[in-house]
Amino acid sequence: MNSTTVSSISTHVGQEVELKGWCYNFRSSGKIFFLQFRDGSGRVQVVYSKGDLSEEQWEALQSLRLESSVIVTGLVKEDSRSPSGFELEGRGVNIVQIADEGYPIGKKEHGPDFLLDNRHLWLRSESQWAVQRVRDQIITSTYNYFHENGFVKFDTPILTPTSCEGTTELFEMDYFADEQGGPMGKGVPESVHTSTGQKAYLAQSGQLYLEAGIMSLGKAFDFGPVFRAEKSKTRRHLTEFWMMDAEAAYVEHEENMQIQEALIIRIVKDVLEKCAYELKVLERDTEPLSKVQAPFPRLTHAQAIAKLRELGSDIGDKDDLGADDETILTKEFDRPIFIEKYPAEVKAFYMKRDPNNPELALNNDLLAPEGYGEIIGGSQREDNYETLMQRIREHNLDPEPFQWYVDLRRYGSVPHSGFGYGLERIVGWVCGLHHVRETIPFPRLINRITP
Amino acid sequence: MNSTTVSSISTHVGQEVELKGWCYNFRSSGKIFFLQFRDGSGRVQVVYSKGDLSEEQWEALQSLRLESSVIVTGLVKEDSRSPSGFELEGRGVNIVQIADEGYPIGKKEHGPDFLLDNRHLWLRSESQWAVQRVRDQIITSTYNYFHENGFVKFDTPILTPTSCEGTTELFEMDYFADEQGGPMGKGVPESVHTSTGQKAYLAQSGQLYLEAGIMSLGKAFDFGPVFRAEKSKTRRHLTEFWMMDAEAAYVEHEENMQIQEALIIRIVKDVLEKCAYELKVLERDTEPLSKVQAPFPRLTHAQAIAKLRELGSDIGDKDDLGADDETILTKEFDRPIFIEKYPAEVKAFYMKRDPNNPELALNNDLLAPEGYGEIIGGSQREDNYETLMQRIREHNLDPEPFQWYVDLRRYGSVPHSGFGYGLERIVGWVCGLHHVRETIPFPRLINRITP
Repeated sequence: MNSTTVSSISTHVGQEVELKGWCYNFRSSGKIFFLQFRDGSGRVQVVYSKGDLSEEQWEALQSLRLESSVIVTGLVKEDSRSPSGFELEGRGVNIVQIADEGYPIGKKEHGPDFLLDNRHLWLRSESQWAVQRVRDQIITSTYNYFHENGFVKFDTPILTPTSCEGTTELFEMDYFADEQGGPMGKGVPESVHTSTGQKAYLAQSGQLYLEAGIMSLGKAFDFGPVFRAEKSKTRRHLTEFWMMDAEAAYVEHEENMQIQEALIIRIVKDVLEKCAYELKVLERDTEPLSKVQAPFPRLTHAQAIAKLRELGSDIGDKDDLGADDETILTKEFDRPIFIEKYPAEVKAFYMKRDPNNPELALNNDLLAPEGYGEIIGGSQREDNYETLMQRIREHNLDPEPFQWYVDLRRYGSVPHSGFGYGLERIVGWVCGLHHVRETIPFPRLINRITP
Repeated sequence: MNSTTVSSISTHVGQEVELKGWCYNFRSSGKIFFLQFRDGSGRVQVVYSKGDLSEEQWEALQSLRLESSVIVTGLVKEDSRSPSGFELEGRGVNIVQIADEGYPIGKKEHGPDFLLDNRHLWLRSESQWAVQRVRDQIITSTYNYFHENGFVKFDTPILTPTSCEGTTELFEMDYFADEQGGPMGKGVPESVHTSTGQKAYLAQSGQLYLEAGIMSLGKAFDFGPVFRAEKSKTRRHLTEFWMMDAEAAYVEHEENMQIQEALIIRIVKDVLEKCAYELKVLERDTEPLSKVQAPFPRLTHAQAIAKLRELGSDIGDKDDLGADDETILTKEFDRPIFIEKYPAEVKAFYMKRDPNNPELALNNDLLAPEGYGEIIGGSQREDNYETLMQRIREHNLDPEPFQWYVDLRRYGSVPHSGFGYGLERIVGWVCGLHHVRETIPFPRLINRITP
């Protein structure tokens, strides 16, 4: 007997196999019992005939409840009516555990709060299973793309001593503030043990640290959780989400956008090829995804503003684009679009200015089509020491905590650029989901850190 | 002219190429100028003869300082004396930025605090560059191993509502405790806005969440930063470090150890093959690494205690192994060793007991050789609802926050096992480093969260 998985049964047609997993549904019709089986790798129906089983095994089947764990044996048969293309002619069943009565998640519609309260179980539904598999593919494609292109993974820190970008949406904590830990940081004598201690902040991006990394490694990326104390409840925001930052030395604005374009094309191509079943489960229309081809249309910020006004918006010349603006714009195009060269004054201090117009930043956002909006933000970085120091002052930031960062401009400064993507937004777009909360196993929202 | 990288120059022998990077050292000898060049992908010497350059370019070379950024052009020549096997006959140089005088890191020995204060620059040294490249390879091998074996990446949360294992080494923070955020959690009315708010804790492991993941995906792994408010300063501890957890349904203790063994063998094999240059830079003796082959020796905890006593230790029957014990034990073997079946009472509540001796846990540690000690901890998990609830009570844990976790035993419980590795410890061992602080780009220690 071959112990195998649903994903491999195509290689066992005509053979008897053993599968270990769960019964996600069943129905009985007299002397036939249909067991809907899943094992994490896929789903298949097992059809038992009473005559093929011992009395004891037939009785065992009758005792099944939803989500019971079972080991099934059966003969693999091709079945064109089945979504998997196969069916098992049941030969035996070994019940590992009969689930408690009243599995909370049924066929009826549940509200989002109920599903989030039961997230640990809801993850078993086929749609959530499919989302996590697509997420895994997007992660894998990202690693593969960067490694094939000479980037090195460089793990930037989460615990940071300052708000690097002067934002207010930081989570703050005491770092060894108590009696034993003592004080932190340079210049604080070891003898001072106060309860105020040192504050630490959870990183919102690894970019600044990644800039140090590329001065050693040339090209680098990080990929990990970041944190924003977002007080707005929107379908695009989580307080904890996964971000990938990439950075490269001697790469300027134009090439930076080319890297972003190639990465996104690679991700979508891989998902279409390798997650066709998952996209079908999610009822994702793959037509828009198949149009994700180079070149992505490009608009300057000024052109985007003009276009939005044509479409009836009253957006101002120097306004950043809001979520609604992005949604409207992306619906005008059939593929992701770059919006580049925003007014520098609404953008971060580290962005390099356009040499042709110092009012503009050499930056870009990348907006996903079908109304999804921003998935990437990137820019060339200011590489001149004096200019960068001036920007820090202009943004009313304390220069002291940035000393290490500006050091990168004192010792071997090079033109360099980078970008960051929000994993959950890409998963949401590729899977065609309405809310990012479905894209991450255990979403953290302003009103939720459970289960 | 080919713009290329040091890692690719072997394909350009006899051609003129352009390389973009940094000058990490130089010396002048009359009419010859030796420029030691690095570009993140590797290092090569560029040899300039005064006669080959314009007056202006020759003068520019004289103005170079350590760590200046330069674009060099030259003819690629094989050179058996060079570590890279190649040399560039310099044709031109374009100085991007002359570094400030007094680059802090020189040839002299610096103390660890000085190097950590200048971590953003120290990362450029060849040894630190090599460590980060090996780290990247270990990460890549881990992803590849798991994906080739049917595991899905499943990102477990960092912000968690409780101390899952009742440990005291947790970092705690307020989660929207202020006036705008409002209260959190089920059962707290929206109208209550107090300053006490909800506490969140930074995760120490994703294991419990991963157990929910495998009930959907069958096999899953996570890989991200975790946090321990370790008050001990040792060479094996960081407050922020990267952990990989793997978990699989229908996998029991024995198979769990086989997976660990195969993973570690794969990692070491890949590093030996793909990072030979980096290991040479680190002066790592590869002989011990080449012995990392199956099967790894196995000792029960009782056998390990007996062995330690033979070696002169006064360790007690039920003591957990300390770092010194691990160091002593690993020196007795030429490859990683499993220590299995610890006394259950000194281990976590979720570990399944040995059916042959319920005093023992079905767990294992994996100790790296050469004195490195624990790199993996794993166990089969308790899958019986009643037994698990009893363990929670025995460990004096509040059962309420574990409701979702024990639900996994109520609905389709299966035998399952998993393990976690500490990335920094594996990097430290494979690279042959004394202290884990060199294994991560920006180490966080009890007295350091900068730069």
